[in-house]
Amino acid sequence: MHSPLIEKLIKIFSKFPTVGPRTASRFVFYLLRLPKEEIESLVSAISSLKNNVKVCNSCFNPFEGEGELCEICQNPGRDKSLVCIVEKETDLNSIEKINKYKGLYFILGGTLSSLKKDDIKKIKTEELLKRMKDPQVKEIIIATNSTTEGEATSLYLERALKSSGKKITRLGRGLPKGSELEYADDETLSSAFESRK
Amino acid sequence: MHSPLIEKLIKIFSKFPTVGPRTASRFVFYLLRLPKEEIESLVSAISSLKNNVKVCNSCFNPFEGEGELCEICQNPGRDKSLVCIVEKETDLNSIEKINKYKGLYFILGGTLSSLKKDDIKKIKTEELLKRMKDPQVKEIIIATNSTTEGEATSLYLERALKSSGKKITRLGRGLPKGSELEYADDETLSSAFESRK
Amino acid sequence: MHSPLIEKLIKIFSKFPTVGPRTASRFVFYLLRLPKEEIESLVSAISSLKNNVKVCNSCFNPFEGEGELCEICQNPGRDKSLVCIVEKETDLNSIEKINKYKGLYFILGGTLSSLKKDDIKKIKTEELLKRMKDPQVKEIIIATNSTTEGEATSLYLERALKSSGKKITRLGRGLPKGSELEYADDETLSSAFESRK
Amino acid sequence: MHSPLIEKLIKIFSKFPTVGPRTASRFVFYLLRLPKEEIESLVSAISSLKNNVKVCNSCFNPFEGEGELCEICQNPGRDKSLVCIVEKETDLNSIEKINKYKGLYFILGGTLSSLKKDDIKKIKTEELLKRMKDPQVKEIIIATNSTTEGEATSLYLERALKSSGKKITRLGRGLPKGSELEYADDETLSSAFESRK
Repeated sequence: MHSPLIEKLIKIFSKFPTVGPRTASRFVFYLLRLPKEEIESLVSAISSLKNNVKVCNSCFNPFEGEGELCEICQNPGRDKSLVCIVEKETDLNSIEKINKYKGLYFILGGTLSSLKKDDIKKIKTEELLKRMKDPQVKEIIIATNSTTEGEATSLYLERALKSSGKKITRLGRGLPKGSELEYADDETLSSAFESRK
Repeated sequence: MHSPLIEKLIKIFSKFPTVGPRTASRFVFYLLRLPKEEIESLVSAISSLKNNVKVCNSCFNPFEGEGELCEICQNPGRDKSLVCIVEKETDLNSIEKINKYKGLYFILGGTLSSLKKDDIKKIKTEELLKRMKDPQVKEIIIATNSTTEGEATSLYLERALKSSGKKITRLGRGLPKGSELEYADDETLSSAFESRK
Repeated sequence: MHSPLIEKLIKIFSKFPTVGPRTASRFVFYLLRLPKEEIESLVSAISSLKNNVKVCNSCFNPFEGEGELCEICQNPGRDKSLVCIVEKETDLNSIEKINKYKGLYFILGGTLSSLKKDDIKKIKTEELLKRMKDPQVKEIIIATNSTTEGEATSLYLERALKSSGKKITRLGRGLPKGSELEYADDETLSSAFESRK
Repeated sequence: MHSPLIEKLIKIFSKFPTVGPRTASRFVFYLLRLPKEEIESLVSAISSLKNNVKVCNSCFNPFEGEGELCEICQNPGRDKSLVCIVEKETDLNSIEKINKYKGLYFILGGTLSSLKKDDIKKIKTEELLKRMKDPQVKEIIIATNSTTEGEATSLYLERALKSSGKKITRLGRGLPKGSELEYADDETLSSAFESRK
């Protein structure tokens, strides 16, 4: 219905996370109304992203700059005895924002929906096992989401990391801020009783 | 617009928790269509509620039967060293359903939205302080909701109960089942890190 | 878990429209806290509802008072050439509130989910056909909801009433107040174009 | 917190319609994982958009190709006596999809939130008035949204176009597909009664 170029761009934007065809077409009409300089600024930012942003050799966090390690892994002030395993980049970011955790990270790159080989290959198990051989690491914090897939991944990791001999912990389950007992599921309420203090 | 009797009943139902005028009028038209026996059964159930249901002298849980104590408080199998303070009857029920907690309860009857005298009178502080003099009680678990008012009430109770010399605990905060790190608030995420295990 | 009387009342309230077990138990605890006079007022209102509210012989609207016809059907100011068929009492009420329609009504008592005999018996087809023989009636407005079941019922009624020889109309389809073209379904948008003026 | 390039791109994406910082950062991490060819395809599509897509001289619909008119305005099969005024490109598209309207369009480019000069300048009033001098045009269909701003714009246009001597119509208001009388606002229900047929 739209012109071929518009249709093509709608199709590309529709693959962006959370974006459907309706939103994708709003993006295109938004771009059509943008001044030329802003279009150029967007295009150059996207182009240089791929060229200048590297992925950290140790934790797989994207970063710019010299060397093979990101700012967090290079930072001498971080506690190298702690490694927190997260599903994705934005989870690392959420944790950094609370400004409480001072250890290192490992970005898994996904979750398991099954224990099939193909699924397991999608997350960085091998790299993780190799990384965990580092004798500096004393505690591994598994911080996958508490969704079904996050829990399955957590169980898988616990087993895979058992032989490492490191302390393995998981984030505490309990009542989140703002919640009411009446609407809490049994598991959460049980955990909240267990972890009372 | 409706007949006076219908209007009167809509008005009464509109005061029920969670019910607005629209739902209240649906209730009335539902009753109009009910067979006579079911209306009588409803009317008799409501009437006998007030006559036969008593409130437990110790925990304020409603119950039927002999004596002054409810089934939980009478049950020799319950751990009398633990008392869990909840806001309302349904919270007690939610906790009973997880079948994990074996202590006793205390129903506060509400929460504080301020520390004004009038507000404090609405919850059973005096009865609570009296109850907590029981030397059998070793631990008081404050299980108010983690809403703003629940938290304010919890703080107030903690202070009020300090002089009792009992151990005072609160339900663990953390990530509930099914949640994602990305959408957790800072406080919840901080608690989840602290209570990792 | 609760006492038998409380459980019984929870069960009765759970059958009320839109009410689940959780809300039903909140209703019961609300009643337990009500003063005796208010309980008595509720009980007497429910009891007298069944005894004093009749259903209009012509339109099936519930009413109190003398005679066999409701206020609307008795009102000499209403236009007796117009009859609006609605699904239920609250729909009649919604239309009365806009203060625009001056004809009479017919409450169908439900919708059809299929054209099976059992389903058709649930709505007042026979009474409707009889009512429509009234020579005063010139136009029949079918005002069922525009849901799937409402539409099916409307089609069924249109066919059933065809032989009456009366003018049969349906409420206009179009864009409701506050809506956006972008989110309108095709049928609604088509109707909006057709009924432009 | 992120690297400067990532932060820059998050900032640019955050200005896209419906996109907040959280979604914007998901876009960036999605791009980081895309293969080089797909990035290049996105970049080239955005770049050529601005260079190859023109805006129709008559209706302001974006198009590719020769000449000054879009496919719709060039199409000899379209009814040139009808012009439908819409707020934005996606509205034109929604109407084209129902495959019912065979006239031409005029894209206004926005709505009025007030009748201040600055606001009026944001929509193409002058271009519209000029376009409406075309003697081929017999009916002007104002198809702004039925939101507050859409209605205000519609009123403004009606006044502005009055002197044109053309027939001016608006999309029909009424009950949309799937709706229930009980939840309809008064205005919509009134319109539905008026436009019954």
